[in-house]
Amino acid sequence: MYRSEQGSRYLYMEVYEHYRGLILSEVLKSGDRMPSLRKASAELSRSRTTVESAYFQLAADGYIVARSRSGYYVTDIASARKSKDVSGREMPHGRENAHGSKPRYDFASSGVDRESFRFDLWQRYIKSALRQDERLLSYGEPQGEADFREALSAYVRDRRNILCSPDQIVVGAGVQTLLHLLCPLLKERHTVSFPTSSFVHGAAVFCDHGFDVHYRDKDADIIYVSPAHMNRLGDIMPVKRRMELIRYASSTGSVIIEDDYENEFVYLQKPTPSLYGLSREDNVVYIGSFSRLLLPSIRISFMILPFPLLEEYQKTAANYNQTASKAEQIALAQFIRDGHLTAQIRRLRRLYAAKQQHLSETAVQIFGSGCRVRNAPSGTMVTVSVPCKKGSGEIVPEDIVKRAIDAGLRILPPECLDGMLKFTLSCSSIPEEDFMPALLLLKEASE
Amino acid sequence: MYRSEQGSRYLYMEVYEHYRGLILSEVLKSGDRMPSLRKASAELSRSRTTVESAYFQLAADGYIVARSRSGYYVTDIASARKSKDVSGREMPHGRENAHGSKPRYDFASSGVDRESFRFDLWQRYIKSALRQDERLLSYGEPQGEADFREALSAYVRDRRNILCSPDQIVVGAGVQTLLHLLCPLLKERHTVSFPTSSFVHGAAVFCDHGFDVHYRDKDADIIYVSPAHMNRLGDIMPVKRRMELIRYASSTGSVIIEDDYENEFVYLQKPTPSLYGLSREDNVVYIGSFSRLLLPSIRISFMILPFPLLEEYQKTAANYNQTASKAEQIALAQFIRDGHLTAQIRRLRRLYAAKQQHLSETAVQIFGSGCRVRNAPSGTMVTVSVPCKKGSGEIVPEDIVKRAIDAGLRILPPECLDGMLKFTLSCSSIPEEDFMPALLLLKEASE
Repeated sequence: MYRSEQGSRYLYMEVYEHYRGLILSEVLKSGDRMPSLRKASAELSRSRTTVESAYFQLAADGYIVARSRSGYYVTDIASARKSKDVSGREMPHGRENAHGSKPRYDFASSGVDRESFRFDLWQRYIKSALRQDERLLSYGEPQGEADFREALSAYVRDRRNILCSPDQIVVGAGVQTLLHLLCPLLKERHTVSFPTSSFVHGAAVFCDHGFDVHYRDKDADIIYVSPAHMNRLGDIMPVKRRMELIRYASSTGSVIIEDDYENEFVYLQKPTPSLYGLSREDNVVYIGSFSRLLLPSIRISFMILPFPLLEEYQKTAANYNQTASKAEQIALAQFIRDGHLTAQIRRLRRLYAAKQQHLSETAVQIFGSGCRVRNAPSGTMVTVSVPCKKGSGEIVPEDIVKRAIDAGLRILPPECLDGMLKFTLSCSSIPEEDFMPALLLLKEASE
Repeated sequence: MYRSEQGSRYLYMEVYEHYRGLILSEVLKSGDRMPSLRKASAELSRSRTTVESAYFQLAADGYIVARSRSGYYVTDIASARKSKDVSGREMPHGRENAHGSKPRYDFASSGVDRESFRFDLWQRYIKSALRQDERLLSYGEPQGEADFREALSAYVRDRRNILCSPDQIVVGAGVQTLLHLLCPLLKERHTVSFPTSSFVHGAAVFCDHGFDVHYRDKDADIIYVSPAHMNRLGDIMPVKRRMELIRYASSTGSVIIEDDYENEFVYLQKPTPSLYGLSREDNVVYIGSFSRLLLPSIRISFMILPFPLLEEYQKTAANYNQTASKAEQIALAQFIRDGHLTAQIRRLRRLYAAKQQHLSETAVQIFGSGCRVRNAPSGTMVTVSVPCKKGSGEIVPEDIVKRAIDAGLRILPPECLDGMLKFTLSCSSIPEEDFMPALLLLKEASE
């Protein structure tokens, strides 16, 4: 993508950016019909294929929705954008309040499965950490507790093909906190791009630090990628494309920020090697987090700095206090050393693979053989595409979302394409016994 | 200070800034002798009194030290600044490593007393919070848990003369994290001043966000004050000066950030009313934290936004994840509701007042009647001034610090003025039974 398809990729991304700008600035308003492919192609002097690719990307990122035989329509993303994360990722729990009370069933949650986490075990580790009185009487190490960084260094060596010293690891309370530390180190650079999936929480921090944020993959000094979460569904970047990206960044002198979100939830293959590990240069920053592995309510993430940035970091490191709870760092260090993180990952992969499978099967059972299902190759998503029963132009995705919410079911807005309604459902926090009643509500809402 | 003494204050702060700049840029290097008062006064066309006031301030902030009958000398602050906080506040534990292993006795620690914190009690609350499985499965509220903000709102109403709704409260993992949220809301403003005591950790965040930081109190769009920690010792800003500051900010349209650090440790008087509560305008942001009240390793702080800033905040609030641990927020909310925070504050005031008194008495016992002691009106500091035994010009404060460290005692660099060596000692984390041996080491090191 970064070199081989560079030409055409850039053309369609330009068209994408053009319309994205119009939508976010509300020149094109929620509910407006997008220009036809023919018209747009004439206006912008681009081929129909290029415009169509751009439209697909806009639809994939939630800016527009297709209605059968009627064209594309602008979603309410511009107004909603300020109150939610368009990538569906790290979505704050509070969003549920936008629709009043908590829904009974939730296919749009970023929470974790109650069965996934051994509260009793974690309590033991926290309790043991709280017994270390002497250590807790003082501030935490600005860079993170030394034993925790050692455990992390062993963890990424064993699981993410990364050789790094604990000194290169910086701990913080969540990815945004780490980016607040990273941005000043990158202040010689001015632009950042998010070519895989738009991560509003990341973009917000770069904006705050005065960076120019865009969603294309060229001409940026910093490239922010989530290789195991390339889109809302959770597609994984293959090794070939990872190598292309590394070569591209190396040729342009860009820094890659590799946000390895959900890399552990890869079901049918071994985890793909990290960019950090694949690169031979000092231009990749690796970011790992535990929100999806443990509990989203535990705020611990870490980044691995390549040596040139590490040197910059160390100059001012003491001016920044540690943000992550010391007790939780101590507990997690011991938890990892005792092998529980590895066991937890195995457990989660089994659990979510089984849930995906079960959700797909239940969907086929309820929507009949006319429906198409696809399990995400990573993460916890399943897409269910069902034939539209209504005539063309009658389907309004937002209405389906509203009808579902009224019935007690929260979903992300479906796409409507080629006579099919495509739902992207998260099986993450919803219990398996709720699949059947929730899908029945979904069926009603979609009819 | 802000109006009545404005003229002279500004003059001496200009001189202060002038030399501070030369020291930090290392034009004046560590060990250099400062120009005599006469020479400086001629060079800068300022009165001797003005220059002397500036020198006092530079000495108070650690930039220069006085040597008896020899003049002022530049400290190693410029090189040390990157690895420590000159205000002695929120000093990261890691700093101790600068001198190798952890010292046996510590008069420079920002940790808390082991006796001050009821670990068993806190463990019970954490355990109970970890039992709330369902709540911990999702991300925390971006603004902080609702019940925690309610408990905070009642707490500041009862103890800090602040009437605010829980909706105005934003929770974060430490003061810096809150400043990262605040800076973008203040982006129309460009300069920030720290007129009370320089708080390097705060200044670092403003610098990162492109603000122009200075240490004088005029011409700044934002005034950052710690009214209960005006200097290293812990002097309290009286109500009269608070009112002057409020009127000054109101007349210039400045925003005040009131960092209410250590306001609870006021011994001989009731806590002074907060600026937020005293102000009748919407121009004060209040910041409170628990590092000194509970454990520095628990990373929870909060800010109270006035309505105009609250409105700005709400526009993008959902783009920022909560940074403080959800379990710790839940635990602390219940801890406050059950009255334990109030009890803890009573306990700490008793404990630290007794420790200050004990340390003073032990100092008199050891240094004899020629020494002068002063207990800080807030906080945990005691100053001990002892006559210099050596002749003029022979005392080098850094040598005393080094000799002390070699003997296993950590201290802040003393000042040397009018034939007296003035030590500022923290009785915060050092146990009372260590006062005697630690002061004996101090005596040896200072001779």
